[in-house]
Amino acid sequence: MSNPLSTEELNGIDAYWRAANYLSVGQIYLFDNPLLKVPLRKEHIKPRLLGHWGTTPGLNFVYAHLNRIIKKFDLSMMYITGPGHGGPGLVANTYLEGTYTEHYPSITQDEAGMQRLFKQFSFPGGIPSHVAPETPGSIHEGGELGYALSHAFGAAFDNPDLIVACIVGDGEAETGPLATSWHSNKFLNPIHDGVVLPILHLNGYKIANPTVLARISHEELDQLLRGYGYTPYYVEGDDPDKMHQQMASILDQVAHEIQQIKRQARENNDPTRPRWPMIVLRTPKGWTCPREIDGKQVEDNWRSHQVPMGEMHENPDHVRLLEQWMKSYQPAELFDEQGAPRQELTALVPHGERRMGANPHANGGQLLKSLCLPDFRDYAVIFSSPGSVKAEATRVQGKFIRDVMKANLPTRNFRIFSPDENASNRWGDVFEVTNRGFVGETLPGDDHISADGRVLEMLSEHQCQGWLEGYLLTGRHGFFNCYEAFIHIIDSMFNQHAKWLKVCNHIPWRQPLASLNYLLSSHVWRQDHNGFSHQDPGFIDHVVNKKANIIRVYLPPDANCLLSVTDHCLRSRNYVNVIVAGKQPGPQWLNIDEAIEHCIAGVSIWDWASNDHGDEPDVVLACCGDVPTLETLAAVDILRRVLPELKVRVINVVNLMKLQDPREHPHGLSDREFDIMFTTDKPIIFAFHGYPWLIHRLTYRRTNHKNLHVRGYKEEGTTTTPFDMVVLNDLDRFHLVEDVIDRVPKLGAKAAHIKQKLRNKLIEHKQYITEHGQDMPEIREWNWPQAEQ
Amino acid sequence: MSNPLSTEELNGIDAYWRAANYLSVGQIYLFDNPLLKVPLRKEHIKPRLLGHWGTTPGLNFVYAHLNRIIKKFDLSMMYITGPGHGGPGLVANTYLEGTYTEHYPSITQDEAGMQRLFKQFSFPGGIPSHVAPETPGSIHEGGELGYALSHAFGAAFDNPDLIVACIVGDGEAETGPLATSWHSNKFLNPIHDGVVLPILHLNGYKIANPTVLARISHEELDQLLRGYGYTPYYVEGDDPDKMHQQMASILDQVAHEIQQIKRQARENNDPTRPRWPMIVLRTPKGWTCPREIDGKQVEDNWRSHQVPMGEMHENPDHVRLLEQWMKSYQPAELFDEQGAPRQELTALVPHGERRMGANPHANGGQLLKSLCLPDFRDYAVIFSSPGSVKAEATRVQGKFIRDVMKANLPTRNFRIFSPDENASNRWGDVFEVTNRGFVGETLPGDDHISADGRVLEMLSEHQCQGWLEGYLLTGRHGFFNCYEAFIHIIDSMFNQHAKWLKVCNHIPWRQPLASLNYLLSSHVWRQDHNGFSHQDPGFIDHVVNKKANIIRVYLPPDANCLLSVTDHCLRSRNYVNVIVAGKQPGPQWLNIDEAIEHCIAGVSIWDWASNDHGDEPDVVLACCGDVPTLETLAAVDILRRVLPELKVRVINVVNLMKLQDPREHPHGLSDREFDIMFTTDKPIIFAFHGYPWLIHRLTYRRTNHKNLHVRGYKEEGTTTTPFDMVVLNDLDRFHLVEDVIDRVPKLGAKAAHIKQKLRNKLIEHKQYITEHGQDMPEIREWNWPQAEQ
Repeated sequence: MSNPLSTEELNGIDAYWRAANYLSVGQIYLFDNPLLKVPLRKEHIKPRLLGHWGTTPGLNFVYAHLNRIIKKFDLSMMYITGPGHGGPGLVANTYLEGTYTEHYPSITQDEAGMQRLFKQFSFPGGIPSHVAPETPGSIHEGGELGYALSHAFGAAFDNPDLIVACIVGDGEAETGPLATSWHSNKFLNPIHDGVVLPILHLNGYKIANPTVLARISHEELDQLLRGYGYTPYYVEGDDPDKMHQQMASILDQVAHEIQQIKRQARENNDPTRPRWPMIVLRTPKGWTCPREIDGKQVEDNWRSHQVPMGEMHENPDHVRLLEQWMKSYQPAELFDEQGAPRQELTALVPHGERRMGANPHANGGQLLKSLCLPDFRDYAVIFSSPGSVKAEATRVQGKFIRDVMKANLPTRNFRIFSPDENASNRWGDVFEVTNRGFVGETLPGDDHISADGRVLEMLSEHQCQGWLEGYLLTGRHGFFNCYEAFIHIIDSMFNQHAKWLKVCNHIPWRQPLASLNYLLSSHVWRQDHNGFSHQDPGFIDHVVNKKANIIRVYLPPDANCLLSVTDHCLRSRNYVNVIVAGKQPGPQWLNIDEAIEHCIAGVSIWDWASNDHGDEPDVVLACCGDVPTLETLAAVDILRRVLPELKVRVINVVNLMKLQDPREHPHGLSDREFDIMFTTDKPIIFAFHGYPWLIHRLTYRRTNHKNLHVRGYKEEGTTTTPFDMVVLNDLDRFHLVEDVIDRVPKLGAKAAHIKQKLRNKLIEHKQYITEHGQDMPEIREWNWPQAEQ
Repeated sequence: MSNPLSTEELNGIDAYWRAANYLSVGQIYLFDNPLLKVPLRKEHIKPRLLGHWGTTPGLNFVYAHLNRIIKKFDLSMMYITGPGHGGPGLVANTYLEGTYTEHYPSITQDEAGMQRLFKQFSFPGGIPSHVAPETPGSIHEGGELGYALSHAFGAAFDNPDLIVACIVGDGEAETGPLATSWHSNKFLNPIHDGVVLPILHLNGYKIANPTVLARISHEELDQLLRGYGYTPYYVEGDDPDKMHQQMASILDQVAHEIQQIKRQARENNDPTRPRWPMIVLRTPKGWTCPREIDGKQVEDNWRSHQVPMGEMHENPDHVRLLEQWMKSYQPAELFDEQGAPRQELTALVPHGERRMGANPHANGGQLLKSLCLPDFRDYAVIFSSPGSVKAEATRVQGKFIRDVMKANLPTRNFRIFSPDENASNRWGDVFEVTNRGFVGETLPGDDHISADGRVLEMLSEHQCQGWLEGYLLTGRHGFFNCYEAFIHIIDSMFNQHAKWLKVCNHIPWRQPLASLNYLLSSHVWRQDHNGFSHQDPGFIDHVVNKKANIIRVYLPPDANCLLSVTDHCLRSRNYVNVIVAGKQPGPQWLNIDEAIEHCIAGVSIWDWASNDHGDEPDVVLACCGDVPTLETLAAVDILRRVLPELKVRVINVVNLMKLQDPREHPHGLSDREFDIMFTTDKPIIFAFHGYPWLIHRLTYRRTNHKNLHVRGYKEEGTTTTPFDMVVLNDLDRFHLVEDVIDRVPKLGAKAAHIKQKLRNKLIEHKQYITEHGQDMPEIREWNWPQAEQ
């Protein structure tokens, strides 16, 4: 290994590292006396010590060295901190490079500013202890481990001149999502995508345990990383001078190799997947903190994970030890009398947007360009009367998405992510204009696969979500196309993204991002192949727990409504939009103008299906979701025939949040609007796509809630016919009619007769399907009576 | 490669394989004419074709060969089918070996039985198309991919004589959970655990895409698997005869190697991790189905993933092709005139419980032994009056768990699983009697780590959940100890386990299992270090959507209640028990006898905290969760001082499901009980641990719901003080008092004065924490007034 650093360079980079370490320790411990100008006393120390030291010196070490190669090779680089617990480190570095002060002018580069920097950390009214939206240069919180590499690759897609350095902690490396995300290199095009430089940081310990990858043999580790498709370079040790030389030497080599790979790919227009370089950095956990405290090993041990020593207000020895520790970084060499970093340090920092805290990709809203959108009306299903035409809603949507893809090919800022469900969910037409992206061997039987495809289909919801998040956070647009049941796999990732967006809304310098859009199809009611394990409509329950101003949920009843909703979602900013829509052929209810009007309203009375003629109805039949809408209209059809005197009002809900109180959600109907629509005292039979309790949770404050009766999925299902699925959950037309009869008081003797007929119908249904394996023709072929005119 | 099979053996195993394939195709397609005794007509074919062929012939191939080595070496073996879509294959094999008929006597081994076998598959009233609880020999549904290996290792722990063969599909291999689960070998003790034999089945395609692992070079694949710590053996090809010889040869070698490893470990008492063998099986997808259909490649292509050809009722060519395909297996050679499998086939099947469909571990309830439980009363926190003692609830629980562990060490049937949070969640005392399990290098600084430890701590919630499920499903007991926020990572795994349990409740031969127990600690209100990203109490919202008879949710207010609940959960069967409890020091309210009574009731009036003296109160203050209970009692303390005339009733809820309607949940209070307790017309201020809407969702049918006002977590938080967290969410004592004042009508002018004082208190609080970084002493040191007597 060569020693590329001159003595001066070595001293400089070490000084920078010590400064970052000093600032990190200061944030964790100090309330005052930031430069240790007077002897440290317990009054200078925070009353509550919160933060994580263990990973921080390693993160600072990497940051310092990346700055060097950024300057040397004039690189555009982002820094993704897998170990989000290293918050103090990233704050320290962005403070040193000046970006922190640019965003937070009161945190000046002087003694007073340093005191404020220290105090605010993990302090009420201050900043979180993790890397967070507040941290300049970050797109990644890291509080929940597992997604660093997925985010990094998401950022690199379509950013050919960007290098995303991604620190993977060895704790994080044990998670499932991280373990599979190494394979992202099979989806990265070396010509028109950027580069991800993974840096696996083996510091040996998690909270209280050794890590797996730090305790396998070098041989196995090397095989594993080569098996993932990388060429690992090792930087291992604890002697700072040697480590600086090693790291510099290897980064020179890696930067050179990356440039070669890129040049070769571009010059030869050859997207063959290279073996990308990566770095394995093995350092002691808590590197440079006291080796022992109170007779117990701390440096190079799990004990340095959080705050290496406490009891600062009770134990004067600890105060002395902290002072020694902080002075071991030689602060007087690092900061001038006023507390500003000395010129020798700041000279090592890249300029302007080359600083990682100022890289524009890390505040992606700055770079966001609106999508060029074709007119969604052009894709409308045309028909004469409700129910007269059948269509597969998501297939219609797919044609629109195809042309969105096509219109934005030149700007390369729209991608689709799906766990192998893009075609299954009926977006196959997209493959007329782009392919599935895969950077590897293709065979003659493959279907629309190439290295430049813009539909990424790895069978990992975690990857899809992580890539998409990284893509959005760096200022682009996308869609996640998923089976409804299995979107729960990323529940926790959704949480983190929603939390990130919520916080960003309060940070003025964070520019708005494109919304995270989900299409959930192959939904609970039409899992004909897959049965019970594929039936779960609960993601929306999960979503609505997050902050209302982030969350939007749409359940369009037909293709034209789906088009309108899709267009709206693609234009929106800073939301998570959840769209639930079926892929099976179904009747179409609204022409495109009606659909637009309905979607803008979010919830409407469907006059054409109602017979209350503007009067107060006897009963309200509400529906939300495509299958519940179908069953509701079929129930209305029955009611018209058997109880023509009954005044029925049909309401369809496309924007779920309209149901909620406007004090809870900005889309909520006012109480007056709600009362006019749903009445204040008439029975409401509500057929819902998901778990019925969600409707109660959203409407419990409404005047007429006591008369609200909801049908939905109640965890009954198996591999059976489509109609049997709704029967199993009492959501079918016959049960809905029975629900009406049970709740409308004046029907008298006739009611018992009708109910008996309905029950016979259900018995007939069960017998028929058990014999024939499919639904009765009268069920399969039912249509809205007007449609037959 | 040797050819170990004689011609007779080769012909036999091939015939067995063909029989399984024949039966699989029959299930997917045939309604009648199961033996093809008459020419196939469209009337013999099911009207709706549902199922998955692609993976099935490979699964059948493996099953046939495992039977051979089971017999040859007299092995106890289980078969875990990662590709759950191969349902027809597992049904076919268990039918051939006789276990299917033993469980389902109407599915006889004759023509009529075969017809029923075929018809029932993916048919209304029949069986699901996936491997499912209904399938003998399975503990794994596989509808959701990713957990096969985790389940396999969970099954192998503490079963030293068991070999778990685990088929990993190359689609599944792309998921995160599967990618990390290869590392399970670092937690498997070669002396006292069993063996997992992974068989990576590369059939090349997912639904519509190639798979990653089938498209990397042999070199990379080999490195990857060696990097995971295995010795891979390759069986690759498409010529059945050659493949049979290869597979037999390699299985002989693998079986031999496994026996050697086990012998070496046992004889030398040496738990050093060996390189376990594994198999890579590369076969065409849809192997043996027609090569082409309608001019398009089907065999060895993604088109064979589900039903290889449809339109059977419209296209007579397809009927002919199906007949040819099925006859290519030579059914007359396989089944006798009556339809029974010929003796040459059944002779290849192992005997009795050696049959994989009859292995008792796969119906673990059969083997389940109750835990030996110490008396939890012995661990009670002793005190004289409510609030007079502080304790860390989960630490007290940990002492009980320690002794549960100790008492059951001899039977080796209790384990704890945690993503490195066991000590953090205060169960550290467990390490007095066992260690953390890790089969690898240990270093001097390590804390209680050894190869025989019974606490498994990998930083992967997926692994913890998967291992625990496998452990429970094979008849043992366990606990998952997790941070509350990150249990969402396994939302979808929980779904699948809850669905499995729900279905098992309807299968008479499935014996009851120990419940899946969660301790969720480090909860939303006390994430002092970690802040917003670690705050999410929504897992219980997710859980309560599943079938009520499976789900139990407990929020004990103090340590003694936690002890009582824990004992109950460890005795229970076939539930998912969720316990949410804090780890921070908190006041103790109930002595152990009161705690038991309270936990049996699930919800009680706390007379000692109330001053309604059995009269109708003016207001009800209800609470659920430790922090809300604390704030509620502090609010009551204030109310007593400022409004001594106000009659307050305090209700604590420990069993959340008590709130629900008894028609919805078996634990639900009757309406009469609820009305007596919560009144029918007085304001209820409910302080809840989680999202407030959950309480509304559970109680919307209750008489007094209109007067229910719930406070809980509303997604407000950061790194701040404990009290500030409740303030941010309006759950603090001052807001609760204000809520009371706003809702009790008769308070008059005094109310405005009190409210002003409360608001001043909140301003004082904010000022104090911003200055001092911790809560005011009067908040930190508040105690229930009786405690000071």
